[in-house]
Amino acid sequence: MLDEKILNVLRHSKDSYVSGEELCKLAGISRAAIWKHIEKLRLEGYEIEALPHLGYKLIAIPDSLIPSEIKWKLKTKVFGRSVISYRKVDSTNIVAYELAEKGMKEGAVILADEQAKGKGRHGRHWSSPSKGGIYMSCILRPSIAPNEISRITLLAAIAVAQAIRDVASLEVTIKWPNDIMIDHKKLCGILTEMKAEQDRVDFVVLGIGINVNIPMKQLPKGAASIKEELRHRGEKIGLSRVELTKKVLERLEEYYNLMKVEGFEPIIEMWKGLSAMIGSRVKVSLRGKTFEALAHDIDPDGALVVRTESGVLEKISSGDVIMVR
Amino acid sequence: MLDEKILNVLRHSKDSYVSGEELCKLAGISRAAIWKHIEKLRLEGYEIEALPHLGYKLIAIPDSLIPSEIKWKLKTKVFGRSVISYRKVDSTNIVAYELAEKGMKEGAVILADEQAKGKGRHGRHWSSPSKGGIYMSCILRPSIAPNEISRITLLAAIAVAQAIRDVASLEVTIKWPNDIMIDHKKLCGILTEMKAEQDRVDFVVLGIGINVNIPMKQLPKGAASIKEELRHRGEKIGLSRVELTKKVLERLEEYYNLMKVEGFEPIIEMWKGLSAMIGSRVKVSLRGKTFEALAHDIDPDGALVVRTESGVLEKISSGDVIMVR
Repeated sequence: MLDEKILNVLRHSKDSYVSGEELCKLAGISRAAIWKHIEKLRLEGYEIEALPHLGYKLIAIPDSLIPSEIKWKLKTKVFGRSVISYRKVDSTNIVAYELAEKGMKEGAVILADEQAKGKGRHGRHWSSPSKGGIYMSCILRPSIAPNEISRITLLAAIAVAQAIRDVASLEVTIKWPNDIMIDHKKLCGILTEMKAEQDRVDFVVLGIGINVNIPMKQLPKGAASIKEELRHRGEKIGLSRVELTKKVLERLEEYYNLMKVEGFEPIIEMWKGLSAMIGSRVKVSLRGKTFEALAHDIDPDGALVVRTESGVLEKISSGDVIMVR
Repeated sequence: MLDEKILNVLRHSKDSYVSGEELCKLAGISRAAIWKHIEKLRLEGYEIEALPHLGYKLIAIPDSLIPSEIKWKLKTKVFGRSVISYRKVDSTNIVAYELAEKGMKEGAVILADEQAKGKGRHGRHWSSPSKGGIYMSCILRPSIAPNEISRITLLAAIAVAQAIRDVASLEVTIKWPNDIMIDHKKLCGILTEMKAEQDRVDFVVLGIGINVNIPMKQLPKGAASIKEELRHRGEKIGLSRVELTKKVLERLEEYYNLMKVEGFEPIIEMWKGLSAMIGSRVKVSLRGKTFEALAHDIDPDGALVVRTESGVLEKISSGDVIMVR
């Protein structure tokens, strides 16, 4: 906490130096102790100039998914107010699930710069190279029944899609239920896990993996990264992972509150607006059988309604759906 | 395992003695080692006579929820093939959930003679006095989506109700979704917990608490026990917890396999046959509001369909339902 206090004093003073004496007074600790905290901040990636007689000046901040960066000017009340960051972890979802079981509050966020065993849906692997992506898991405690879990999934998809549009100005779309796509390539995956009783969700862990600054050669087949997409558009530098993470948290909170007040309908409407799927041909893999159909609508439970070749409307609430080009 | 082997030799020889020498040969260990195993079995509650020159004889078996008793002549292939027993545990559901997360197989059963923090639905407490009840949690790994979880809950209810009818000959009924009742008093509660992705259940922990030999004064308000009910009918001794546990496991496996092959429909039919609810007046507490209605049917998802005062059919998939006398 003292690190963050010292850091924020330096942030506020921008281009001018803050004397060691001043920092001592503000933090209520010795000069030697201040020096230790400065060294710790440097290890986290902050560039801090230290000049005799003048004091300390913040030169550069790291694009690291650390609490001090995420919380700085974050416009939320609940989401991301509690942040735990790892340089490397097996899976942020596993950590978040364990913490949720121990009672961790709604809105708490687990972040990692790298995942050794990133989890995708249905036990699949999620490629999570170091510092290239956002690997985050958020704990939610919604008052819903397990059969309403799609609400959270669809809500998360629009929050992430909108956040990417806000920050990167890329025209991403959503593939049902919750993949974020660009040019038919996957930019982001969302894994919703929950603990529930038969009629009541205990908690949800919302895992979000976004390929931000991952170079082409590190991307799995069929995947895209924001950096590569920006490069195609002539932009040479990648995107701030910190800025995008903050925007995702802000959008999540916004839509979560919206749903609490207005229900699921506005979420479905937004989802449809951000999805390129409705009206297009899809291939559905469901319990071993595969068939082509027309994506017709999203029903009030969040299920995908497709029109089969024979004209019948069928409701898909699980299984894989691929868009046919 | 050696304990069980020795025990089963003694069981098979019934009224005759088995010499120490014989046991040594069968178990492949020394006389002194045999003695140690006999002592261990005695600590578990087995009465074993030991006479010089004659050998050992099994006099009495304990009504203890221990693996050797549960597995003895158990007619299942999966349910209860793996049993872990505790004298006392906080909650068998908590233990089973942790083991399921670590990959424990379907059909594994956690049993306890007493629970310090027995769990009921919605964070409620489940009274679990020592040796008076069956406190069991069973791990299931069904291929279902979270919105199909009611199938497991209703299936468990019919398995337990039928098992009690089989063993105790009491005309118990089911109150939606899964309380087992006798004379409007609760005899058994079922707590279904699961870990799931949005469209796929990872595992289910089926918690079953049955008031077997609990005396009146230890029963919570509105609760009944099998022993007290049998006493009303003039039977002075209680019921074997071991026998009932085995029957529950056998019925669970039977109906679980039935559902796999024939689907949910026969389960609903059986549920209706064992329920005193359909056709009777109920009081529904749902999201803060309470209203009276007529229990009309169970729908194909396992939800209760009620007819309200105004004649409208309403689907109840969560909330509390009380039968109006």
